[in-house]
Amino acid sequence: MSKEDWGESMQGTGVSKGLCLAKVIVLKESPIPLDGTWKGYEEEKRLFLSAAKDIYEKTRTLAEKTRQSIGKEEAAIFEAHCSILRDEELIRPIVEEMQKGKTAVRAVEEVIEGHVRTFQGMENEYMRQRAGDLLDLKVQLQRCILGISMPDLSELKEDVVIISRDIPPSVTGSMDLDHVAGMVMEGGGRTSHTSILARTLEIPAVVGVKGILDYAKTGVLAAVDGELGKVYLNPSKETCREFRDKIAREKERNEERQRLVKLPCRTEDGQEITLYGNIGTPGETERAVRCGAKGIGLLRSEFLYLSRNRIPQEEEQYQAYAGVLEAMGDAPVIIRTLDIGGDKEVPALGLEKEENPFLGLRAIRLCRAEQELFKTQIRALLRASEKGNLHIMFPMISSLEELRWAKETVGQCREQLIREGVAVKDKIPMGIMVEIPSTAVMAEAFAEECDFFSIGTNDLIQYTLAVDRGNDRVSQLYSFYHPSVLRLIRHAIEGAHEKGILCGMCGEAAGDKKMIPLLIGLGLDEFSMSPGSLLDARKLIRRLDSSECKALAGQITGLKTAAEIEQLLDGYLKKKEEEHEQEL
Amino acid sequence: MSKEDWGESMQGTGVSKGLCLAKVIVLKESPIPLDGTWKGYEEEKRLFLSAAKDIYEKTRTLAEKTRQSIGKEEAAIFEAHCSILRDEELIRPIVEEMQKGKTAVRAVEEVIEGHVRTFQGMENEYMRQRAGDLLDLKVQLQRCILGISMPDLSELKEDVVIISRDIPPSVTGSMDLDHVAGMVMEGGGRTSHTSILARTLEIPAVVGVKGILDYAKTGVLAAVDGELGKVYLNPSKETCREFRDKIAREKERNEERQRLVKLPCRTEDGQEITLYGNIGTPGETERAVRCGAKGIGLLRSEFLYLSRNRIPQEEEQYQAYAGVLEAMGDAPVIIRTLDIGGDKEVPALGLEKEENPFLGLRAIRLCRAEQELFKTQIRALLRASEKGNLHIMFPMISSLEELRWAKETVGQCREQLIREGVAVKDKIPMGIMVEIPSTAVMAEAFAEECDFFSIGTNDLIQYTLAVDRGNDRVSQLYSFYHPSVLRLIRHAIEGAHEKGILCGMCGEAAGDKKMIPLLIGLGLDEFSMSPGSLLDARKLIRRLDSSECKALAGQITGLKTAAEIEQLLDGYLKKKEEEHEQEL
Repeated sequence: MSKEDWGESMQGTGVSKGLCLAKVIVLKESPIPLDGTWKGYEEEKRLFLSAAKDIYEKTRTLAEKTRQSIGKEEAAIFEAHCSILRDEELIRPIVEEMQKGKTAVRAVEEVIEGHVRTFQGMENEYMRQRAGDLLDLKVQLQRCILGISMPDLSELKEDVVIISRDIPPSVTGSMDLDHVAGMVMEGGGRTSHTSILARTLEIPAVVGVKGILDYAKTGVLAAVDGELGKVYLNPSKETCREFRDKIAREKERNEERQRLVKLPCRTEDGQEITLYGNIGTPGETERAVRCGAKGIGLLRSEFLYLSRNRIPQEEEQYQAYAGVLEAMGDAPVIIRTLDIGGDKEVPALGLEKEENPFLGLRAIRLCRAEQELFKTQIRALLRASEKGNLHIMFPMISSLEELRWAKETVGQCREQLIREGVAVKDKIPMGIMVEIPSTAVMAEAFAEECDFFSIGTNDLIQYTLAVDRGNDRVSQLYSFYHPSVLRLIRHAIEGAHEKGILCGMCGEAAGDKKMIPLLIGLGLDEFSMSPGSLLDARKLIRRLDSSECKALAGQITGLKTAAEIEQLLDGYLKKKEEEHEQEL
Repeated sequence: MSKEDWGESMQGTGVSKGLCLAKVIVLKESPIPLDGTWKGYEEEKRLFLSAAKDIYEKTRTLAEKTRQSIGKEEAAIFEAHCSILRDEELIRPIVEEMQKGKTAVRAVEEVIEGHVRTFQGMENEYMRQRAGDLLDLKVQLQRCILGISMPDLSELKEDVVIISRDIPPSVTGSMDLDHVAGMVMEGGGRTSHTSILARTLEIPAVVGVKGILDYAKTGVLAAVDGELGKVYLNPSKETCREFRDKIAREKERNEERQRLVKLPCRTEDGQEITLYGNIGTPGETERAVRCGAKGIGLLRSEFLYLSRNRIPQEEEQYQAYAGVLEAMGDAPVIIRTLDIGGDKEVPALGLEKEENPFLGLRAIRLCRAEQELFKTQIRALLRASEKGNLHIMFPMISSLEELRWAKETVGQCREQLIREGVAVKDKIPMGIMVEIPSTAVMAEAFAEECDFFSIGTNDLIQYTLAVDRGNDRVSQLYSFYHPSVLRLIRHAIEGAHEKGILCGMCGEAAGDKKMIPLLIGLGLDEFSMSPGSLLDARKLIRRLDSSECKALAGQITGLKTAAEIEQLLDGYLKKKEEEHEQEL
């Protein structure tokens, strides 16, 4: 009995949530024949150079198309491919091998595999990823030389589920993505380009489904659950019905949420609550707005630096910031200055590996050590200030001296720009992340010298509890609900209000359903969260009562453990949900 | 002109402070001739085995002597050498090589060098250190086989300065250390066995003095400054006078301090201040008492686990704890339970390397994950409780659940021991390190459930400021005087007093002269510091006025930066010193 008849699911890792039910297209890579006959140096060289040119042009087009239809970030991978294809260090040795009597296909194989091995052996994660890019290009070049074509997926007539061992970016990029209902890979990983793209486009995707290529056939039905990581080939009637129902309900919920965006974001008793979006690239601005964000509470500027081989220039940064500011109009856009360090890979900075990167040269500390880096970013921000409602936010501030230094540097850059004749907005609010315990403890002193706070709960919790939440041997100690964390949050909000400034939050706790009522009760002024959480938050807020929230905040004062507090908050949330259901 | 005539100093790294002026003995290692003739298998084997036996016996004696004259810890290295010499995995291949026609010297060379290379290539620091042990043994074996003797330093008639490339433990161990006035090495490092021994015995030592063996000759005078890392060969008359003066003054100060130990430790206006000692091994107990410690405020139990290949057994731990408790009589001995994790090397635990070990599976967290480890230690502590005034202290407590778990486990172990018929003291105070921000923030809740606090400033500062002080790219941000750190310290003391328990401090801040007046002002109940700081602290305390200290604590409330606070504290300290000088 083959798997197809079982009606059972195959398990993988869900990397992009959502459900789909559609016909399968299997992409199988036929092995490249490496033992062809040498057609003479001139002919092999011609074949190779013409393939390189073809692939280069195809990739250029892909980069352009991707930039327009998806975003700059997603296009970057193809731009990287283009650079590789023009790299003399790669081309020359291939030509030399052909001169020695090797076929173009074999020369490409040997030279590129040599590079791949070198990259794969590297410690740097970014460099290891480059191995994948090279493999993708290698296969494209060889297919082109041999005239082996891939199925054309650029115009699909109906929705399909793509099943493959791995889907390289060059293939994903040329797909008619509007009709790709799901993606399933036997290999792959959560952070592969294709997984990231699937999440961006909200296409359900499952990776690491072992053995699926042994069973999958083009044309059969498949049901994919991208959250649970399940794939059903030839699903039973029952499974099909179940999926159709779920998909319909999900669609309904989405439509309901879309209606919700148009309703005011205020509690049942009328208190307005400010919801902003956290975004990691300019490309996500639109989605945040679509989900009802009334501003950007956190634009992480790291996208300009990560996984690149060079530091972004002022102009490039200016363009990126200006784009978001323009898109948001009068709405506030809080751009956080560079927040990287030994824990994130920035090849261009050549940062040393640290023993405890979370306690090391990160963020504002790195910017103080590398002042030109910081000044370039500040100049780009100030230049962009005329385009919208810019707020500048400094991360990892632990002492007043750091805040004073940052503000002074902004002042210097402003003067310099004005001397150069560049227009800079008059008043640009400058605030800080409250994410180091020392800053929360002295909140009122910091509030006196800046324009706003944004509490970064992720780091604040890590430092307050001395827990690296990425370390699964201690992550169970990491909790939003630890009473000390809540005391520091309360202290930060009170410190801000004492000095008349606003206090927001851009850590994950701001989007946590149990935390939202408590944070309203504590007087938090602004909630910034990933766009995906905005609609649920809005729905919840509209059912809350601000005086109940205040009472809740009072109740936690007497509780001493995270478990007790979580239980209290969970009880309140359940109560509100029950009330809501009774009303319906 | 040779260096000897310059009267100038040579620079190295001071690893053990103090000054000396004495005649030099140069220890030069003559190279071992490796190309002797093979005397036949039987003869070579006899030579080798007899050398191994001799060295084994010599090392055994050395271990015994060191244990008695210096301490168990220092003896451990020789015990390790003894185990290596009995290791069949080492002996057999050497014998096999001799069977193949190699001389004993060559066989020893090849087999041991092979092992050395393996160890040197290892990531684990402890394993790399083993390479040094093997090299030490190799040379000893070869010298013994060839009958090359080393200068006998076991009975010295006058004080000498030993100058060598490196001084292996086997050589240091057999020296007449009472007459070693100083040690100077061309190689070496701060954490080498010899450097550690020099600090323990307070012998001035300098390592890494490049080129000194080119100039040093046995019999000439040398002046060594172990603090500044300076070595003067053939010092000028002036330098000699300077050193003699300084040595005399230092001796005077030591004598004065010794008088001081006998005087009460109270402020000028009569407030008694409790001074305890921090110690890392039982061997340091005596020195702490000699320096006036009225108790042990911190016995770090890690010495039993670090740099070992096996977990210490209950009996071994019991002996160690009982020894300290007996030596201290009725005086409190606060023993901290195991405080290790990914940042310290404990080969026997096989801990995984973590991304951020300071935020990882350390101390009480590790003990909860490895409960047998913890229970063995607790049983050993409880068994030793009858020998003195034991206090048990739990490190890295960040939540009440952890404290409750630790106390419960102690209760279980107690019941178990009583069932086994073992006597356990009735009331054993149990306290916690206050070293994680969450614990300081909720001090009063923790104080309600334990018997004492000891503030661990080193970690508390690291987490409060998110600074790894061992990382020299950010260590300048680490400060005792950061106003947030001081607020948390104040909060911890107030929380303890609110619930009627005592609050001590065992971090480095407790021994900092600028901090002491402030901490008295804040109401700290007990100061525990390294024995070397005790006398200076006592001297300072006797000049202080408790109401001035209280006023000082009030003054810092208004200050917002570490720099302002340090300036205030420094000003007060200078004032007190000036007052004292005027009185004299």
